[in-house]
Amino acid sequence: MSQQLLLSFKKDVSLIEPEETEQLVLQSSNRSLTFKQARSGLKTALKTLADGGATLVELNQMVQQDDGNFLALRFYVYLQKFSNLGWLCHSVLAEGKAIAIAVPITSDYQFPYTEVAVNSKYMLSRFTYCHQVSGQLLLESPLSQTQVLLLDWKGTALFSQLAKPYSCHELVTGIPGISLETVKQFVSLLLSTQMLSEASEDGTIQEQANTTLAQWEFHDLLFHTRSRLGRHANPSGGTYRFSGKIEPIPALKPRMSEEAIELYKPDLETLKTTEASFTQILEARKSIREYGETPITAQQLGEFLYRVARVKQLIQTERTEIAQRPYPSGGALYELELYLAINSCDRIPSGLYHYHPLAHQLCRISDRTETVEALLDDARQSIGQQSMPQVLIVIAARFQRLAWKYESMAYAVMLKHVGILYQTMYLVATAMELAPCGLGHGNSDSFTKATGCDYYAETSVGEFALGSQVKA
Amino acid sequence: MSQQLLLSFKKDVSLIEPEETEQLVLQSSNRSLTFKQARSGLKTALKTLADGGATLVELNQMVQQDDGNFLALRFYVYLQKFSNLGWLCHSVLAEGKAIAIAVPITSDYQFPYTEVAVNSKYMLSRFTYCHQVSGQLLLESPLSQTQVLLLDWKGTALFSQLAKPYSCHELVTGIPGISLETVKQFVSLLLSTQMLSEASEDGTIQEQANTTLAQWEFHDLLFHTRSRLGRHANPSGGTYRFSGKIEPIPALKPRMSEEAIELYKPDLETLKTTEASFTQILEARKSIREYGETPITAQQLGEFLYRVARVKQLIQTERTEIAQRPYPSGGALYELELYLAINSCDRIPSGLYHYHPLAHQLCRISDRTETVEALLDDARQSIGQQSMPQVLIVIAARFQRLAWKYESMAYAVMLKHVGILYQTMYLVATAMELAPCGLGHGNSDSFTKATGCDYYAETSVGEFALGSQVKA
Repeated sequence: MSQQLLLSFKKDVSLIEPEETEQLVLQSSNRSLTFKQARSGLKTALKTLADGGATLVELNQMVQQDDGNFLALRFYVYLQKFSNLGWLCHSVLAEGKAIAIAVPITSDYQFPYTEVAVNSKYMLSRFTYCHQVSGQLLLESPLSQTQVLLLDWKGTALFSQLAKPYSCHELVTGIPGISLETVKQFVSLLLSTQMLSEASEDGTIQEQANTTLAQWEFHDLLFHTRSRLGRHANPSGGTYRFSGKIEPIPALKPRMSEEAIELYKPDLETLKTTEASFTQILEARKSIREYGETPITAQQLGEFLYRVARVKQLIQTERTEIAQRPYPSGGALYELELYLAINSCDRIPSGLYHYHPLAHQLCRISDRTETVEALLDDARQSIGQQSMPQVLIVIAARFQRLAWKYESMAYAVMLKHVGILYQTMYLVATAMELAPCGLGHGNSDSFTKATGCDYYAETSVGEFALGSQVKA
Repeated sequence: MSQQLLLSFKKDVSLIEPEETEQLVLQSSNRSLTFKQARSGLKTALKTLADGGATLVELNQMVQQDDGNFLALRFYVYLQKFSNLGWLCHSVLAEGKAIAIAVPITSDYQFPYTEVAVNSKYMLSRFTYCHQVSGQLLLESPLSQTQVLLLDWKGTALFSQLAKPYSCHELVTGIPGISLETVKQFVSLLLSTQMLSEASEDGTIQEQANTTLAQWEFHDLLFHTRSRLGRHANPSGGTYRFSGKIEPIPALKPRMSEEAIELYKPDLETLKTTEASFTQILEARKSIREYGETPITAQQLGEFLYRVARVKQLIQTERTEIAQRPYPSGGALYELELYLAINSCDRIPSGLYHYHPLAHQLCRISDRTETVEALLDDARQSIGQQSMPQVLIVIAARFQRLAWKYESMAYAVMLKHVGILYQTMYLVATAMELAPCGLGHGNSDSFTKATGCDYYAETSVGEFALGSQVKA
């Protein structure tokens, strides 16, 4: 445990003294600790932790002075317990004022205090990021169990220097009005919270030697740690945090144009009795990246869309409107929309369309403009073939359908829905003897340009290529 | 266009003077511009832009002096063109030294220069983040088409103050050695690159008034913009960037324990001819969150896993080993693994297992420990029912299988795979008259604790509840 850093309780830990007892209770949101007979030294130390904090040496003196050596040792064990519970913050002081404070964001917390060597060089982890949250500047990292609040420009100035390997000695000369002691504490704090890594003489840092970690990109690991439960303290799940503040958007996207093509509806009851078995289709499914000379027909496209993505029913619930469609969707919110960039389809002119899933119509958005051509060409490259898909289905998300209900996990749930839709499309296309292929990526900015959608309200998140099969 | 900021070409724009001609060519990675008869003033200005840069006024003087007024006006049009192409960087100087430089990261670039009002307050967007990339400190934002390099602690110090609403006048007093002119330029730069937002008198910022944007979380929008093509200049797709540097991991995860249960294999050929039609199953699929009194059997579990997730074949390609399984996977890399937390199953003891997809066995990892209990209990809560799922299937990703090949999009592709697997499980469970339910989230840290996996090498990314149906 650090001798120099200031120790204090996290804000959500409160100290309660039940009247007419010698008891003292420490209470957090999910845990409480009762001290049955708290002596005066312990009381003083705990009150100090709850109110501003002190260094380990100072706290130890408080207990030792009033309660004696033996209880001072026991206090040290308590401190370790508080630390493991994620109750203890560690602060760096400059001229008596905290410039940075490390706040635990998990229970089952580790703060492996690491003293720095004055001449060793340290460098920021490529996973550490600094951003504004509710008017505070936070350092966070998917490798860390901590948020470090930067309370003064001096802390941020030190942080910025550490983008390159620096020793404490070098750091102290670059920035006015900072002592070596402060620099050492600051570097220790970031090192103990996995925000920094030690640099070797060749300028590489320890973190880079880890070939597993090396294969994680910043945005992927950040997203993974924040969208899953675990190493963060953010609310997660169906929290409905915008309820009463922002109106939820309707289940059905308003019609995008009056120019609509009625689509063919298959007779599902006939299909149920005549079509191949489920196992037959599942086992036969494969990606097909070559297309027949005779293009897919309007009837096939109608049947495909009906079986994959029609709206069976809209249901008004107490909070919001939900839907029923052939594939599953979290909360029955169905945020995904289908756009068709048609290259060649018998009886449907080339161009861009939106699928209206309740009316079962294609609403025309545009001709085959330059942007539509770019979408189709991106898809051709993504498939890695010379020929363009006959139909590119662009899957877009009306993201706020999910975000209004779900917190932390909304985008992750949405991408799972995209996968669910891919497999539904694969299987329906296999049953219909069409050529299906799910694509890896696409350009969301091109999509908004092609459709006129607001990038933040609805943008593309998946692409699926479809066409007729080459005849044997 | 700004009068004060320093203009310069982006590093990838080079200036070529073909010998014995009056031509001058500007060349970037994907575009070139030829000036057929470049006069001396224009040459000087373009060379200055390529080598250090100058302000608009200085550049204009260079052209005007040598080439005259008319060509100086035309030069202004060229500058606008360079800006739109994403070729022009804008820098803020302090005492002649650049402290921040805005570098375009898209073509089709906009730099809507916004002069600041000295007494207006500004505050960092909650989407702006600062991090170390290759030894440089970068400001980025999913709202921005720019990366701002912070080249000096003074820039970072100003950035840190802006976590709260500040006017330029207030900023200049807080940090030693910065002039009001520098502060104004810095704030202008961040405002013109969508890193800042103007604050109202009540301390809220413009950004907050946008109810669409308000529903995006930081990690979601960051991930979306970086995993999709569009507003960034990062490499994307199957780039194989670790080839020759890091060994790819094998397609098959090594067996996790020798204590293995052989699983039942269904006769697929019989199923193909006797089972209900695909449409019948697709249309009947639904989430079922209640379970029968008689638990799912080992035979059912065996059949389910075989139909959903067995490895049909391993194939060694030139670069890496790939596989064939019943559901589709990008690059046939199959990074997903199935873990079964068994609450109740006839003939399989409660505990945690790994599914070996080639041997078609369950490898025992542990008894029903406290951590396994926690996984099951999380699932119960996630389903929102009183009863625990009979079997919780935890889907984990051996992430480096994908990351070794794919850049920018690896995690997004992986979540689509999870969705594909969900729908495959839903449909197989429906065909088998079991009770399926895909879950929204789970705890990845609990998973690594329960299995002993390295969080960065393999961690959970999806959960699926399974059991027997309640008998009618």
